[in-house]
Amino acid sequence: MQRHGSPERRVVCRRVVTHSFGEFLASAVDAAKKAGEIIRNGFYKTKHVEHKGQVFLSLSLSFSCVDLVTETDKACEDLIFNHLKQHFPTHKFIGEETTAAYGVTELTDEPTWIVDPLDGTTNFVHGFPFVCVSIGLAIGKIPAVGVVYNPIMDELFTGIRGQGAFLNGKPIKVSEKTELVNSLLATEAGTKRDKETLDASTNRINSLLFKVRSIRMSGSCALNLCGIACGRLDLFYELGFGGPWDVTAGIVIVQEAGGVVYDPSGKDFDITAQRVAASNPLLKDAFVKALQESE
Amino acid sequence: MQRHGSPERRVVCRRVVTHSFGEFLASAVDAAKKAGEIIRNGFYKTKHVEHKGQVFLSLSLSFSCVDLVTETDKACEDLIFNHLKQHFPTHKFIGEETTAAYGVTELTDEPTWIVDPLDGTTNFVHGFPFVCVSIGLAIGKIPAVGVVYNPIMDELFTGIRGQGAFLNGKPIKVSEKTELVNSLLATEAGTKRDKETLDASTNRINSLLFKVRSIRMSGSCALNLCGIACGRLDLFYELGFGGPWDVTAGIVIVQEAGGVVYDPSGKDFDITAQRVAASNPLLKDAFVKALQESE
Repeated sequence: MQRHGSPERRVVCRRVVTHSFGEFLASAVDAAKKAGEIIRNGFYKTKHVEHKGQVFLSLSLSFSCVDLVTETDKACEDLIFNHLKQHFPTHKFIGEETTAAYGVTELTDEPTWIVDPLDGTTNFVHGFPFVCVSIGLAIGKIPAVGVVYNPIMDELFTGIRGQGAFLNGKPIKVSEKTELVNSLLATEAGTKRDKETLDASTNRINSLLFKVRSIRMSGSCALNLCGIACGRLDLFYELGFGGPWDVTAGIVIVQEAGGVVYDPSGKDFDITAQRVAASNPLLKDAFVKALQESE
Repeated sequence: MQRHGSPERRVVCRRVVTHSFGEFLASAVDAAKKAGEIIRNGFYKTKHVEHKGQVFLSLSLSFSCVDLVTETDKACEDLIFNHLKQHFPTHKFIGEETTAAYGVTELTDEPTWIVDPLDGTTNFVHGFPFVCVSIGLAIGKIPAVGVVYNPIMDELFTGIRGQGAFLNGKPIKVSEKTELVNSLLATEAGTKRDKETLDASTNRINSLLFKVRSIRMSGSCALNLCGIACGRLDLFYELGFGGPWDVTAGIVIVQEAGGVVYDPSGKDFDITAQRVAASNPLLKDAFVKALQESE
């Protein structure tokens, strides 16, 4: 009570917080739309492409990597960071490109923007239309605001903790499926090509295909999460994705659409663990069981 | 010479044929756009869905099937057939829905419209945006005109034998990739869920993933072919798809975009065999070898 003052004062505080979340979202949407323009322009052109594998090799990671990074990726991250830093100079920033170049930035309790400037870079390079900007804001390590924008299909997914999830301004919700056999599963082959990882990956897919309706692989972790949020997909898991920038925005959007995000083992989701599963709450237990049986 | 008359006459004949192909295409585009409206309207609504599996079971086929058929599917086939029959009353017709209900119609040398009114029915039911109308015309059993329309993304792929391939009116061509390691592969899990088929399917994917950049599964055979045609995808194969309606239109579009369509074994493509592979010509030999090594 001492800390927050009178009940009236607490209401004011809550209003300020709500208002600020709206400001955070508005700025993130602006940044996503501007980055989206860069992506859209580049999407139809031949591009100068670097192998992310080389970046990873320079960090002495031992796996083979066929993921790609493009100049567009870097231009978008600069644009988004500069835009958000102007509005929120005290906030922290974690971005895929910065991390790839300079190593991991520790996630603290401070308000932290966690950004993938171009999720689906392989799709971008090939012209496959599942690409997006993913901008999430974590406060106290908990995702609070999320924006995922696919500039090719002009689909803007947004979410604010406690205020719902939206696709192009219309409320979205997860599917109402209750059985795996009627469910559409999404996952990805990932970027690692060592035998152990690949065998585990295809064995898992084999096991799950006996239980679900069908499988989709479209090459964007953030858009897979948004697919769960709007009910296009019923089940999603991915092991070994890039980092928290792939999921922070999507997590808010899934949760605000009535969905749940968890570790594929069924334990609590850990934003640093590069393992994610998502579905509606009704499918969670059966999905976790199926994932366990697939190991 | 007797048959075709003088050189001048032959030119006239060729002009007539060219003109007619244009008419065939225009009518097919009209039908595809009208059917697309029905699909678009249904896409965002809850739908009454039947299991195609039940239809197959009534035909005493022994595999488990999780494919779906919707009322929209039937409405679109009726619309397309009625539209084309009005314009070309002497032509023959083969459609997925008609075949599912009344059995296979033999493909003759007569001009025959081969139609999938809604390719990607599982996507349609789930609201996943890869759905399309596929309308092909075969003459002498050879695909001559193709229209594939995705009404959700408003992408119209067209092709006429000898006259090029187009996406929304702009010429398209296959990718220029020469190596598997840089190539994006598309395939599908299919609808059969018996152990032998599924194990073969995931073993094949496992083997190929060691050689290609990544894999996409988006749930529409016709759109996968169009993906090859416009260079979004570099490699595509599918074994055990529904029938010639899934591929007839796409084949013309791939070939007119500079691509090749063949049996996954490397032999000539057989429109009745439910086996297809497609790529640019530069990748064919390496892809066939990789597919053989994956068996």
